Formats: sequence, structure tokens, C-alpha cells
Amino acid sequence: MTEMLRVIGADVERADARDKVTGRARYTVDEAMPGMLHAKVLRSPRAHARIVAIDASEAREMPGVHAVLTGPDLDDGTMMPVYGYFIKDQPIVATDKVRYEGDMIAAVAAVDEASANAALRKIRVEYEDLPSVPTIEAALADDAAELFETEPMGIVPPYGAGSAGRLRPRRNVCYEYCYRTGDPAAFEEADHVFEDTFRFSRMHHMHLEPFVCVAHWKDGGEIEVVTSSQNPFPLRKELCRIFKVPENRITVRVPYVGGGFGAKNNCKTEPIAVLLSRMTGRPVRFCLTMEENFLTNTQHAAILKVRTGVKADGTLIARQSEVLLDSGAYSDASPLVSEKAGYRMPGPYRYKHIDSVCQCVMTNTAPAGPYRGFGGTQATWASDSQVDMIARRLGIDPLEMRLKNMIDLGEPFVPGESGCDSDLAEGLDLVAREAGYFEPRKPNRGVGLGLGFKDGGGVNKPAQARVKVSTFGDIHLSCGTVEIGQGARTALAQVVAEILAAPLDRVAYLPLDTRYIPFDQGTNASSGISVMGQAVQRAAQSVRDQVLQMAAEELGTTPDALRLDNWTVIHGNEAKPLAPIIMGRYGGTGFEFTGEGFHKQPNDHHAPLETKSVFWEIGWAAVDLSVDRETGQIAIHKLVVSGDAGRAIHKLVCRGQDEGAALMGLGQALFERMIYDGTRLVNGEALTYRVPLAEDLPETFIAITQEQGHGPGPFGAKGMGEGAMLPIAPAIANAIEDAVGVRITELPITPERVLAALEAQADGTT
Amino acid sequence: MTEMLRVIGADVERADARDKVTGRARYTVDEAMPGMLHAKVLRSPRAHARIVAIDASEAREMPGVHAVLTGPDLDDGTMMPVYGYFIKDQPIVATDKVRYEGDMIAAVAAVDEASANAALRKIRVEYEDLPSVPTIEAALADDAAELFETEPMGIVPPYGAGSAGRLRPRRNVCYEYCYRTGDPAAFEEADHVFEDTFRFSRMHHMHLEPFVCVAHWKDGGEIEVVTSSQNPFPLRKELCRIFKVPENRITVRVPYVGGGFGAKNNCKTEPIAVLLSRMTGRPVRFCLTMEENFLTNTQHAAILKVRTGVKADGTLIARQSEVLLDSGAYSDASPLVSEKAGYRMPGPYRYKHIDSVCQCVMTNTAPAGPYRGFGGTQATWASDSQVDMIARRLGIDPLEMRLKNMIDLGEPFVPGESGCDSDLAEGLDLVAREAGYFEPRKPNRGVGLGLGFKDGGGVNKPAQARVKVSTFGDIHLSCGTVEIGQGARTALAQVVAEILAAPLDRVAYLPLDTRYIPFDQGTNASSGISVMGQAVQRAAQSVRDQVLQMAAEELGTTPDALRLDNWTVIHGNEAKPLAPIIMGRYGGTGFEFTGEGFHKQPNDHHAPLETKSVFWEIGWAAVDLSVDRETGQIAIHKLVVSGDAGRAIHKLVCRGQDEGAALMGLGQALFERMIYDGTRLVNGEALTYRVPLAEDLPETFIAITQEQGHGPGPFGAKGMGEGAMLPIAPAIANAIEDAVGVRITELPITPERVLAALEAQADGTT
Repeated sequence: MTEMLRVIGADVERADARDKVTGRARYTVDEAMPGMLHAKVLRSPRAHARIVAIDASEAREMPGVHAVLTGPDLDDGTMMPVYGYFIKDQPIVATDKVRYEGDMIAAVAAVDEASANAALRKIRVEYEDLPSVPTIEAALADDAAELFETEPMGIVPPYGAGSAGRLRPRRNVCYEYCYRTGDPAAFEEADHVFEDTFRFSRMHHMHLEPFVCVAHWKDGGEIEVVTSSQNPFPLRKELCRIFKVPENRITVRVPYVGGGFGAKNNCKTEPIAVLLSRMTGRPVRFCLTMEENFLTNTQHAAILKVRTGVKADGTLIARQSEVLLDSGAYSDASPLVSEKAGYRMPGPYRYKHIDSVCQCVMTNTAPAGPYRGFGGTQATWASDSQVDMIARRLGIDPLEMRLKNMIDLGEPFVPGESGCDSDLAEGLDLVAREAGYFEPRKPNRGVGLGLGFKDGGGVNKPAQARVKVSTFGDIHLSCGTVEIGQGARTALAQVVAEILAAPLDRVAYLPLDTRYIPFDQGTNASSGISVMGQAVQRAAQSVRDQVLQMAAEELGTTPDALRLDNWTVIHGNEAKPLAPIIMGRYGGTGFEFTGEGFHKQPNDHHAPLETKSVFWEIGWAAVDLSVDRETGQIAIHKLVVSGDAGRAIHKLVCRGQDEGAALMGLGQALFERMIYDGTRLVNGEALTYRVPLAEDLPETFIAITQEQGHGPGPFGAKGMGEGAMLPIAPAIANAIEDAVGVRITELPITPERVLAALEAQADGTT
Repeated sequence: MTEMLRVIGADVERADARDKVTGRARYTVDEAMPGMLHAKVLRSPRAHARIVAIDASEAREMPGVHAVLTGPDLDDGTMMPVYGYFIKDQPIVATDKVRYEGDMIAAVAAVDEASANAALRKIRVEYEDLPSVPTIEAALADDAAELFETEPMGIVPPYGAGSAGRLRPRRNVCYEYCYRTGDPAAFEEADHVFEDTFRFSRMHHMHLEPFVCVAHWKDGGEIEVVTSSQNPFPLRKELCRIFKVPENRITVRVPYVGGGFGAKNNCKTEPIAVLLSRMTGRPVRFCLTMEENFLTNTQHAAILKVRTGVKADGTLIARQSEVLLDSGAYSDASPLVSEKAGYRMPGPYRYKHIDSVCQCVMTNTAPAGPYRGFGGTQATWASDSQVDMIARRLGIDPLEMRLKNMIDLGEPFVPGESGCDSDLAEGLDLVAREAGYFEPRKPNRGVGLGLGFKDGGGVNKPAQARVKVSTFGDIHLSCGTVEIGQGARTALAQVVAEILAAPLDRVAYLPLDTRYIPFDQGTNASSGISVMGQAVQRAAQSVRDQVLQMAAEELGTTPDALRLDNWTVIHGNEAKPLAPIIMGRYGGTGFEFTGEGFHKQPNDHHAPLETKSVFWEIGWAAVDLSVDRETGQIAIHKLVVSGDAGRAIHKLVCRGQDEGAALMGLGQALFERMIYDGTRLVNGEALTYRVPLAEDLPETFIAITQEQGHGPGPFGAKGMGEGAMLPIAPAIANAIEDAVGVRITELPITPERVLAALEAQADGTT
């Protein structure tokens, strides 16, 4: 690229930096409204039980209590008191049954949290226990207890090309995604067919700001909700549906969000807070504890069975996969996660035939939902591990095996898809070289590669943005992308500043308020720069074009003879300030130019997902590690991770995204799991839930931001922030096999599991 | 018009009705922020004096006081502490001089108003009195004291075609407007030349909600102002200029406004509140008393000299006029009012030559600014009185005289102007007939006609609006028109509902916030429906077109085969709900369609005002009254007033506007005046300032809303609300001459003045 860029790629201060380091940044937890009450909920101690009776009369009389909400309150005909992304199966509070330990049974609004908690202790619930299903296997058993005895509203048929329609042949399956390409007969061309099964553990998002909102059902029927949410507009739509209040009478405002990683989607705390506000006429704050966060949303544990046909020379022929996701007690986003997990199972390789099935299995555990990687983490764990295993089984170098089968730049991985927008080989060579892949190994030391791959930007996702610029060149940027720590404010403002040739500090990123801000489907799927970025770019271009057109008319020339520079218009050797020109045309009180921008991938009913993917998020990793044969401990000497930003709008933010994703991947690979004793979560709090600590950092940790330049976003950018998470776990498992010849197929890779594998190896049982 | 309308013209509930009758409506006076302080100001007891010294040290030590602001604080280099529409002559608080009794000298921010007032009493000011000029005549005297010894910043040259450049030949003239058409030699064609002088008294707006704002200069440098203002965007621009804070770091929010009538423009309470907030770090509320309102903004008193040449048959030939406006101590909007007063002096008649001059004269009295009618009231008082006088002098029926000279529908009153968009004769015949003009007179009883005329919609005024519609058809209307009691929310929402074929209650009119709402120059000049209405109409049409285009693509047809009906799309005999179509295209989380609308009259550098007028606001009146020869009392038997709404979007609101304007005109004609004893206002409060009471209502009071259908606004609408004020005073004066043969040329027409005229008549001195 030969164009001169002023702000893009420059080392500018993050737009949120001063707010955050001074403590001035306001989060939802900081929100206070006059007369505000505080909500707390009673949670089920039973995993699966019918509620026989509930008595809240004593709680209602407790000091400071303004309202107590229980199941019967939902039945007043004014609402549809269940929610869920697709399947509306989760009640605001339990009605007939509880379905997991932690399920919400009753809520209290009181003058403070202590009073609310005191009242909760006075609520008497009589249960009739039911058999429970704590795991995927238990839930699928022929005689398994069913979480839902009748179908909840909103059950949708599976979709996707080649859908096998296998929905609900099994108990407790709430959704199934299938797709197929080519002819199953392709397996007959294979010299070998390998079948392996992988297990993926359940993780928690560990967002530091809890689930929290303040809701106010105002006199007159308007609802205002301030909430820590990644997708305010879909939340508004869901509240509209639940409470039968028009969308333009509901305001959702989102200040800074203190982390989400996927968890802060759809309804979480909001319906209870809104309903308690309706009952009390007061604003109600509902803030969960860290322990409650663990009971509210999690990543899907999974069992992934992969069957791959391959030629003797390593050419991949066909891949069949069956993925079972543990959805927990309510469907949440499981259907969409299952589609993405299923779709991504082949990895970025050429096959003659793909047959992918992914089922969502309900269990009596905490609900699972979106999580950074969105099904791609599970898929990559299985897919990329197995490619490496096959290479070793065939005696082929795993790098060579990948290079032989990887799709090329521009090549679609399935027919109808958009072409791959990264050169996979370039990145793989980069990380392999950096990690010493090509150098001789020492004993018990190995180098493993990982290649993560996900379609990015979200399915069918439209984005709108607005830029308005005042008489003096002060810029207002309106868009629905939530600043959740990812640097969206900075990067999107840089795009605007670049196009309008303005200093970055002239751009104000407006607070998110659904009344005013253009609609957006949500801050997810790494869509900030790849989807919203395109809308923002067009909005800024529209303003630029309007300003140049106006200036051309006033100066008696054509727009192409002019360009902008810091709110002057450059005409030949002259720089004319714009403010006087604007006031000459529009009057002394001035004007504002407004540009709207829109982006949506075109629908394509022939593509497996109905729309071509916006971009491809690739994560490359290479790990150099040693295995202690005595203890099973892993020592990571060097972790090299790389993403392709296409164009790095802000290099430091991009590197931070890759580093953060890689560390989350490291946690997933080695440490993190929600441990259940039957249906009871035993490590659901920050002290015992093991995340990577500073001492767990690899001896050398390198994150390389590639800028291959092929992204669809502004200036060649594409999405960041999820890709680098994907390849970490398989790269580590691959390195372990490289080091000591054993294969770990279950996460996390604990010393116990490594030791067990080494013992089995010694016993000759593997 | 044959089109079927659903909402336009329908008897729908006002959008603000429930809020206002339940007391739920929030005004700026209701605004409270945590930690808010209260401001009060010390006002000058001297009319014109130099400030020798000011000592606020004792005040600063008073309990509850957080800050005291005096002139020296303005001199810290961080601001340009003077304001004004064009000429920046009014300091935030007095610096070197005070210029009227009531001028602001110091301000205190304290925990409550009582503490602030107590502190004010401790401020010691030492004055050196200067000679003062209480009236226009005194101010123009050759040896008059000058309010400004050096030219304030922002003095602008007069503009307008034929500008004579007579600026400042006289002392204390801050601005002069001139225009001329044709050849002065035309006077030589006249058989008679009549010269008359009229006097117009100073009035106050009497808005029930006082001047009030709450300002918060936040940590980090952002400014938020909630204010009772008619033009939030120009206010933002002025605050930006004063405080050197970018426009996108200043938020101006305007809730319901409790009346303005022109007064609530530009800076009033805001600079002091903002500065005190900067000094204290706390939000500051500054709310004036009714008495202070009188000292803050007023209508211009005027002396109007008119010289008109006319043929013996009553054909008007030429008119020369000189208008002197009493601007008070600061220029405020005087320059623009002078332009409008001067421009409108000819009235809606054909002349071969017009020569109009209007000067703004500074006096040591309260500043004058915009007022309903905006110079048109002064102009019509003189212009329409004199036409009637000339008719009677020539023995021609005043109605005939008008009909002979009035411009026709479509005819411009001066070259380069837009054509008249009302049939003047139609309206004049209507009111004359209704008031019994054609019937024989009883003794001492007369019928007078009045014809008001003003260019409407504002000079050079651009308007932008935005309509966005959610998945379920809930509509958000964003526009900068302030709901000030005129019914803008209702009428503009009706336009949107009509175009989108939606029930009116689906439209939400969004609260005004300058960050989000499209730019608007202000709620004035009856521009709500005539200018903003066109922008709103286009925004709604844009949404409609987008929705039909989308539906056509999804249904495999063309947009012209479809129409909307209550968020279904009608295709032949089928009605298809839009929400499922939208979710099919954009995903289950839905979408919002956004339409932007813009309107601005094209610039025309040949027109006297550089832009053609948007529309013509006409007020017709006929008055049937008796004069009590013994007391001078006027008894109005019938007042018929009429405006032309073009198309009445909401008939009751239109009638309310005409009734309200006519009553304000009645006050002006008979009662209202701010009485000065030298430079001291003696009736500046609600009890002694005489407005029309219920008992002053005419025996019969009829307001007729014409719908002539020629307006430029949506569905043929045009502006309302000022026109019916204009003809009342001349109609009454004309009726008095018709009744008893005396001519009153000075407002208000008090019994004393009538009696004096009758006595002079009896003495043969008239």
C-alpha cells in the first residue's frame, strides 16, 4: 500500500486510556439512580426438582423489603416470562421446576443488598426432587430424565445445507446443526480412516465486572436499563417481547463494560431488575457476585468425535464429525454455538467430503453460552489435534501435512464460501521458525504447531454507523459497538480521523443509548473492525464527500480538486478554513454534516450459512516445551502466537488482543475447568477456579501481529481477538506428543493426565 | 387534494398531553443533579456606571458558599467572556461598566438559593456614575453618553441589497439594516405623500417557566447543560466559543420548555452556570425569578416613521421608512430583528420603490431580543395602520384600498423573493364578513381590518431530521425542534405516521440532546412544520422507500407494487407482516431502518435576504368595537382572527396558536408595556405588568384556521403561530378611527390615550 496514512497504525493514545487509569471511567456497577433499590435472588440448592410450594410471606414483611418476586407473579398475563436466543426456555424466576443448582427461584428488591439477602433467607420452598442428568452421557441415555417435558416455545428446525434433520432422536437434545459437502463415497478413496474422540472442559469467562444492571420502569410505562451488555439492541428486542412494551419505549444504555468474552449477551440480570422495578416503581440495581457469575453463564464442555479419511501420502479426503455440546440447563446461545462448532470442524483444509453434526445436550448444570472463540475453540481442539496425530501416524512431518492440505489465499474452504483472506503458509512458517520447529530436539522436549480457523464477523450481521461533524470540525461518532476493553473506541475513531484528515482527539465516541445510536446486532464475532469498521468508514466517507461537495460549490470548483486537512479545505496551494465557508452557506449558527454508513454481507442462499463469511480469523501458534516424565509437569519454554490483523489499525491494541487470547488459550489448555461433583459446582469462585497466573507465563512469550493486508475492513483490516486463542491447546498437545510421544485428548492437560498417559505408554497400553 | 389521509388533520391526542396534565412532564426547572449547587446574581442598581472596585471577600466566607464570580475572574485567559448573536458585547458578569439597572455584576454558587442570596448582600461594589440614556431619543442625541466607548468584537457591516451603509452616523447605534428597490424618483408619480410616525411600546414575553439551566463542567472537561432553550445547537456553539471547549465535548439537553416566545435564545443563564460549575466542580442550577426575567430579555420598543406615496385613486407607489428599535443595553438579537422589521415595513403591497432603514439603538435599559413576530409586530403596527389611514384620508374604503394594492397569490412582494403562498383577498373577505364589516355602523362603533405579513421559516435556515424504525415497527423521530407548547411533537409525529402508514402512538419523539440529535438552527420563525416538517417528511419517506425496496427484494417484486400499512406490506390482496421478513433478511436479532431528511432554501445572492423566504405567514383580523367617548374605554364586541395553515396537521393545535397569538396581540394593543421611570423599570413583575385577563376577552372571539393548501411544508402545510399576532393592534386602531374618527399611533391604546385623542378631536387640534 502506497497511500500515506496519518492516524491508522500510528502509536496513538487509547481513547479510553485516561478515563480508565484515572478511575473516571464509569461502568454499570458505578450507576446509581435516585431512590434505587437493590435486588438479590434465591438460588436453587437442588439440581432438578419440582417446586411444590413457595412461601414468601415472611420475606415480604422484612424491614427494607419493597417487593418479592416468585414464579406465580409471572402469571399475570402481562408478559411472556421466558427468554433465550432462539428457544425461549429460561424463566425470569423458576415456575414449575428448577433445573440446576443455582437456578433462580425468587428475587427480592430492598433498600440494600443486606436487607435483600436477609429476606431471601425467610423464603420457604418445598421441592419434589427429580432424577438429574449431570453430564452429556447421562443426558443422552435412553432412560434419562428430561429437563423439559414439553417443548419450550421457539424450538426451531435445524438449518444449513445438508441438514440431516436428526433433531431430537435423543433425549435432552434441544438443537442439532448438520451440514454436508461432496459425496460420502469419498471415504472409499482413502487409504486410512482415523477416528478419534476429544474432550473439552467447561470454562468460565471470568469477566471482572459482574453481570449487573440498573433498571427503571418509569411512571408512564417507559423502561430504562443501564447494563453491562455486549448487545444492547437484541436485549431491547427481548425485553420488548417479554414485557410487551414497544421498542421505542425501552432505552438500553451501556457505559464501559468491564469484560464479557461472550457472556454478556441476551438477558442475564435484566428481566428480574425490570420486573422488580415495575413492582416497586423504583429503579432497581441487580448486581451478581463472582460466585453467581459462575452459575449464570459458561463455555460449553464438549465431546468431539472425528473420523478422517486420508491418502497414504497425507492428502486429506473426507471428514465426518459429531460434536456434543453440554448446554447446561437452558439453551441460551447453544443453537448458534453448535452451528459454529459444527461448521468449523473441518479446519482450513481441502476435503472432497465433509459431514458435520453438532448437537446441544441439556444437563442439570449451569447454562452455557457464547465464549471467545464461539465453538471454534472446541472445534480447533479436536480438528487440529487430529491432523497432527494423523501426520505422526503416517510418518509425515506435521508442518508438511498441513502445507499439503491447507486452502490457499483466496480459496473457499467449502463451496459458496468467501475465500480465505490470509496466507496460511506464511503465518505457519513464521511461528514455526520463531519457535525453533526446524531445529533438532532435545530429550523430552518438543515443538508443536497449532492452526486455528474460524469464520469471523458473525452470521448475517448488518452494521450501521453515523458520523456528524460540527461547524468547527468536532466529530461525533455514533455506533453500537460496545467498548468492552478491546479498543473499539480507539480503532473506529482512528478510521474516522483518517478519512476526515482530522486529529484523533477531534473524534468523540458517543455513549451507547439505543434511542439514538444506529442499530447494531451486537459486539461479538470480532465484528468491530471487520463489520462495524466498514459502516464507520462509509459514514466518514459520506461526510467527507458532502463537505468537499459543499466547498466545491462555494469555491466554484469540483470536489476532486479539493482535499481535507484538519478542517481546512486544500485547493491547490491554498488552505481555506471550513468554518467560515459553512457559516457563509448555512448562517452564523452553523451546521453539522451527517453521514450514515451501512454494511452487511450479501445473503447467498447457496452458501452453507446463507451468507458468505465476512472474513477468516486465523490463529497460528507454535510451542516449545519440555515434559517432566516424573511429575507430568509441562514447562513451556517459548510460546509464539500470531494473528493476522490484515492491517493493524492500532498495533499495540492488536498485540494485546493476541496476547490476551493466547493466555486464555493457555488457561484452557493447562488449568481451567469448572469442576462438578455430580451436579454441584465445587470450584465456582475466583480463588479455586484456576486461571493462569503470572508465574504460569511461558519463559518466552511472543505475539506477532501479521498485517497481510487482505481483510475486508477499512484499509485492509480484519477482526482480531479470538483467533489467537484457538491454536494454543492443540499446539501444546502436539508439542507433548513431539516431546514424549503421548497424546492428550482431554482438556485441561493436567500433570495427572500427562503422567497417566506416560504410564500407559510405559505399560504399552497406548 | 384527493389523497386519503389517516393521521394528518385528524383529531388525535397531543403527544405531550398526558405528560402535561399528569404533571409527569419534566421541565428544566425540575432538573436535579447529585451535588447540585444553586446560583444567584447581584444586579446593578445603577443604570450606567463604571465599576471602580468590587469586594467579594466577605461573601466568599459566608456559610454554604462554594464560589463567588466577579468580573476579574473572567480575565484568566481561558475564555472569551462576552456573548451576543452577532455582536459579542454582553459580558458573563460586568467587567468595566454596568449598562442598565439589573445588569449582572457578580454571581454566587451556594448550597441553596437562600445562602447564595445572603452572600450577595455581602458584596461591596463601588461605582462611578455615568450619564445615562433611557430612551431612543436620548441615546441618539449628539452629546449622548455612549454605552460602548470602543467597538465590541463582532461588529458586522450591514448587509442586504441596497445597503446604504449608514452605520453609526449616530451615537449608540449598533447595527443598521437597509434595503431599497426601484427608483426613488417614483415618489414623483404620487399624487399624495403621507408621512406618519408610530410608537411601539416595550413588552415582556411572560413565559411561565423562567430562564433556567443546570450546568455541569465535569471532571475531564466535558460540559453538560440542561436548559430551557429554544435553540440548543447555537447555544452549544456559543459556549464552545466562550469556553474554548470543542462542540463534541459540550452536551446541551432540552426537556419540555415552559414557554419562550422568542426570549429563550442564545445565552441567558448558561454562561454563569457553566463558569460557576467549572469553579466549584459541582453541577450548578441557575434559575431566575419572574422579576429577573423582565430584566433579562424584552421586546423592542420602536419609533417607526413611514412616508408613503400614493395616487389619488389609492394606488400605492412608493414607501420610505425609518425604524428605530430600542435595543436596550446589549445587542442580543437586535441586528436580526432590525433586518426583519425593516424588511417587512412595506407590508404585502405592490410598490415601485421601497426604501427601508432600520437602526438598533442602545439604551441604558434591559436588553431586547427576539419576540413572537420578530420585528413583524412593530412593522405591521406602522405599516398596516398607515394604509388604513391613507384610505380614509383619500375617502377610499380601507378594504378596497387593500384589495387594490395587495400582491396576488404567487406574486413576490419584492423582486427575487418567493411568491406569496396565501390568497390575501380570500382571507380578508372572510374576516371582514365575519366581523360585520359590510354592515351599517352604529354610533361610536366601528369595524377595523388588519393584515399582518411576515416572511416565515427563518433566514438561511437548514434543518435535518432522522427517523429510525425497529424490527417491530416502533418509530424513533430525532429532530432538533423543541417542544415549547406549540405542539411540534404532535405535528411532526403525525407527518411521520402518515408517511409510514403507522398509528400515531408508534412514533416516539426523542429527547433533545445535541450529541445525538441532528443539527438544527433553532425553534423559531414558525419553522417547525415549514422547515423541519420538510426534513422530517423526507426522513420518513426515505425509511418508507428503504422498507419497500427491502420487501420487494424479499418478495420478488418491485417497490411500486407494494405499500405499507401498520408495519405490514400490502402486496395485491395480501398483507405480510414486516417483522418476519426483516428477521429473515437481517437475522433474528432484527434491524432498524434509518432515514435522514434535510431541507434548506437554496441560496440566492440576488434576493434581498440572500435566500428566498420559505413561506409567508399572514394574519388577518377584523375587530368590531365601541369606544366610550366619556372614558376612552374600548369594548371589543367581536374579534375575528385568521391564519392560513396551508394544511392544518392538527386543527386544534392550529386554532390554539391563532387564539394565543391574537391574545398576545390584544395585550400589546391595549394593555402591555414595560413602564420605565427614567432608567428604572417600575412594573417588572407579574402583578403590575398588565396582561390580558379572562375578563378582557372580546365578547365574541373567533379564530378561523384557513387551509388554503399552498404551503411548502408536508401536505401543503406552512408555519403557524406568529401571524395572528400581527394584525390585532392595527385592526383595533383602525376600528377606533372607524368608530370615532380618531387615530391612535402609540401602543398600548389605553383609555387615557383614546380620551386625549378625543379631546384633541373636540379641540380641533387633530
